[in-house]
Amino acid sequence: MAYPRTRIVPLGGLGEIGKNMMAIEVGDDIVVVDGGLMFPEAEMLGVDLVIPDITYLLENRSKLRAIVLTHGHEDHIGALPYLLPRLNVPVYSTPLTNGLVSVRLKDRHAIQNADLNILRPGRQLELGALRVEFFRVAHSIPDAVGVVLHTPAGAIVHTGDFKFDHTPVDGEPTDLARLARLGEEGVLLLMSDSTYAEVPGYTPSEQIVGDTLHRIIASAQGRVIIACFASLISRIQQIVDGAIACNRKVLVIGRSMQDNVAMALELGYLYAPEGTFINPDDLKRLPADKVVIVATGSQGEPTAALARMANKDHRFVRIQPNDTVVLSATPIPGNEELVARTINNLFRQGARVLYSPMEPVHVHGHAAQEELKLMLSLVKPKYFVPIHGEYRHLIHHKELAKAVSVPDQNCFVMMDGDVLELAEGGGKVVSQVSANYIYVDGIGDVGPEVLRDRRHLSQDGMLVLVLALDRKTGALAARPEIVQRGFTSPDDAANLLEQAREVAEKAIGGGGEVRDEWSSTASSVREAVGAFLYQQTRRRPLILPIPIEV
Amino acid sequence: MAYPRTRIVPLGGLGEIGKNMMAIEVGDDIVVVDGGLMFPEAEMLGVDLVIPDITYLLENRSKLRAIVLTHGHEDHIGALPYLLPRLNVPVYSTPLTNGLVSVRLKDRHAIQNADLNILRPGRQLELGALRVEFFRVAHSIPDAVGVVLHTPAGAIVHTGDFKFDHTPVDGEPTDLARLARLGEEGVLLLMSDSTYAEVPGYTPSEQIVGDTLHRIIASAQGRVIIACFASLISRIQQIVDGAIACNRKVLVIGRSMQDNVAMALELGYLYAPEGTFINPDDLKRLPADKVVIVATGSQGEPTAALARMANKDHRFVRIQPNDTVVLSATPIPGNEELVARTINNLFRQGARVLYSPMEPVHVHGHAAQEELKLMLSLVKPKYFVPIHGEYRHLIHHKELAKAVSVPDQNCFVMMDGDVLELAEGGGKVVSQVSANYIYVDGIGDVGPEVLRDRRHLSQDGMLVLVLALDRKTGALAARPEIVQRGFTSPDDAANLLEQAREVAEKAIGGGGEVRDEWSSTASSVREAVGAFLYQQTRRRPLILPIPIEV
Repeated sequence: MAYPRTRIVPLGGLGEIGKNMMAIEVGDDIVVVDGGLMFPEAEMLGVDLVIPDITYLLENRSKLRAIVLTHGHEDHIGALPYLLPRLNVPVYSTPLTNGLVSVRLKDRHAIQNADLNILRPGRQLELGALRVEFFRVAHSIPDAVGVVLHTPAGAIVHTGDFKFDHTPVDGEPTDLARLARLGEEGVLLLMSDSTYAEVPGYTPSEQIVGDTLHRIIASAQGRVIIACFASLISRIQQIVDGAIACNRKVLVIGRSMQDNVAMALELGYLYAPEGTFINPDDLKRLPADKVVIVATGSQGEPTAALARMANKDHRFVRIQPNDTVVLSATPIPGNEELVARTINNLFRQGARVLYSPMEPVHVHGHAAQEELKLMLSLVKPKYFVPIHGEYRHLIHHKELAKAVSVPDQNCFVMMDGDVLELAEGGGKVVSQVSANYIYVDGIGDVGPEVLRDRRHLSQDGMLVLVLALDRKTGALAARPEIVQRGFTSPDDAANLLEQAREVAEKAIGGGGEVRDEWSSTASSVREAVGAFLYQQTRRRPLILPIPIEV
Repeated sequence: MAYPRTRIVPLGGLGEIGKNMMAIEVGDDIVVVDGGLMFPEAEMLGVDLVIPDITYLLENRSKLRAIVLTHGHEDHIGALPYLLPRLNVPVYSTPLTNGLVSVRLKDRHAIQNADLNILRPGRQLELGALRVEFFRVAHSIPDAVGVVLHTPAGAIVHTGDFKFDHTPVDGEPTDLARLARLGEEGVLLLMSDSTYAEVPGYTPSEQIVGDTLHRIIASAQGRVIIACFASLISRIQQIVDGAIACNRKVLVIGRSMQDNVAMALELGYLYAPEGTFINPDDLKRLPADKVVIVATGSQGEPTAALARMANKDHRFVRIQPNDTVVLSATPIPGNEELVARTINNLFRQGARVLYSPMEPVHVHGHAAQEELKLMLSLVKPKYFVPIHGEYRHLIHHKELAKAVSVPDQNCFVMMDGDVLELAEGGGKVVSQVSANYIYVDGIGDVGPEVLRDRRHLSQDGMLVLVLALDRKTGALAARPEIVQRGFTSPDDAANLLEQAREVAEKAIGGGGEVRDEWSSTASSVREAVGAFLYQQTRRRPLILPIPIEV
């Protein structure tokens, strides 16, 4: 049989961390792995989140068979509430992932018409001419999987996020046997998680964290408050286990965490004896050393539970001097300042605060270098594409692949939007598709020009110049009005703005028609006032001349 | 003799990293240690730098005897160009620090009238009733010292920034003997660097970095480009040594680094044989494997040399595939994203990029826990104040002091502006002085209300509503004009703004006098339009109604 056209089209996650989404096109069938969001970087001002650009999928909607999901973290499922209503395509995932997607879709009022389906590891599903199969991987959330796409040209393996934890909390390690068998049968392409490709050695097992949390809870004099990601079900299980062993009750704080816990309990991914969980009201009647609180806010997010506690701003938890607070997480790049501030404020409230790396209260969910090599050695792919990482991670992962003897010309360091075509003779990036950042802000998205203006406004503020023009003559009818925000302190403003007014008047010149040449007038006013203000202050506010006919 | 009033007044550096400045007041004499700047945090939008609030010093100008400087890093001397012209006080420092201060003051046109003096370690200087003395410390810059203030009540020891490097680049380790002798004679108060109080063990010696850089330069096929702090003279010495050993020439790029190198060569703090340094023009004639480039930009600063090279935007250095680029620094908290972006872009240009912790190309200049304990054990102070650190660092340092048997009630975790009074019976925080952040932006400073507006503008942009009011009747004379920036994409704007216009008209109501109740009109328009836009977009732009009489 002829080798069908096989294309790999990353729409997110290659060249940046987050918004993971990979389209695989074989012949007339497209299968998409994941649909995640990215948290905005510092300069994406006012943006709530970033989602992938799906222009390519909309243009090829007739070929799109399914979205399959590797696990329930935001950077793999978080864009679905925005994308599913536009794509209207079946979704396949394991039960816990499916539960987390449902919670997310309900939150965003996008659950109606969603076609959500369960696919269990080991089962195969026909999608057009392709067969899809999940295999278990260990990650920092239960029920995580990698994806095998059986194509006429061979198996394509996508690891999702993974590590080789041999003692995971849920007892489900990465499926070495299935990977080895795939490797024996021949794998066309491996796409593997690069997040930790810079880290030598092995990532420690989650077990270490469980042991540490148990020890902390056992030795604490008062309450223990532990913050972690809302979706980190296995960590919550460890906390629950520690609490039960120490004869304490557990209070869950933060709506997203409460929803996830309820769902995980219902689906059987979280185990706790009857009566383990308590309500906020119970805090009053229980002694401090009988309570463990699990809370959101481990990234220092200002509106989440932990930051509120740190700011004495939480509805029902006030930090007490005997409290032990544990941050069972490490800051996502960009969040370091917020996390540090939260820790400082917790100390100021008198808490004992424990965090990584001073205490081993967190391990990562991603494979380090030796594990990445193990994956490569098991799967023995013909072609290799490092995925999930910044450019430097992809480069380092490629070096590992070469060390495990994938030929250099068969390794492809791709960026989002690159189209890799695999043919009998070899692989080649043949074209690009649209893969912009889509910036979600409130309802709807904003374009790069909006962000450019926000950046400008954020640096030096703005100055509005209202110019009244005579309706009949088109000439300046009154002195310009100037209003500023974020440019200078009100005390310094009066004199400076009066001078700027004079500069503006001079730039316009006396008495002539202005309206008909408004755009040139506007730009000469903008330039003259801008130059004057820069000379006075070394600042460049956004200057906005507005004409009003009177 | 009576115990004079002894007060410790931190004006910067306690509770945050940077802008270090400590006032020590004994009887009628005030001596200030350091005058540093802080780099702005992410939410200090448009701010160039933050300097200490010196209200207390201005109010007590008649007691102020001198500013003494511990070393030449920005966070210890960077505010002097702004503060010295207002304080007009003699400055004492070691020769290299003095040279760096001169460079800084010339840069900012603040050198005239500056009263700069050299004080060498071991010499004592009378300042009012006090005697001041420097002692050598090892830090990541040569000629660094700690300060002893001999007071009638005993010695006050301020460590500056330090570590116990027994093999420093400049051969000048921390003066153990002087510290031990001070400890024997009896120290009233120790103030010690807390930056690394969370780090267990010892900070490695600078020697490790020298060895690594030598190895990298020796094995590189092409050019080696090394970025570090402009003031890191000892690192530059290591790079020069490595280059010479490998028969390469050195090009220094970045004006601040060039100035510092010239000054350090002149003062004898940097040693290089004649002909070591080359000009940009020489790049063309020299083979790539005969060149080492030292550059600014190790923090990913967009306008510094390294980021420009990474962006193909540098005047005369274009990255080539055989280049090895070394980041001999770690990101200051808050700079992680910028540094990561620079690294990614350098990889994209085809360079081999080496950085910490993957390669030991940087060590820190601050003492870790075992060194902090050694300092405490040598000095054996009666009272202890941890300095230079966030609140959490100060807390951890206090725990170390207690472990080395300073009594709990003699340890004071202070914040900037706290006034600690030490008397015969004990110490006590007795009051607070003004210790605000002074935000420098271009020429002059901006207040917190300006930053609040910038924050608002940065999140959701702004909307100007120009309301033309009839000069005679005071009523609305025309439809409101609306202009927006940074709120919504132009494509989405037209329809939305037209509706907002109608909402504004409705809020004002028909035909009545508006001018006399302008402030209530403005706020009702702002509220109505704001509510409408929030309901449509979930965004809250800054809304600015401007009245114009026509």
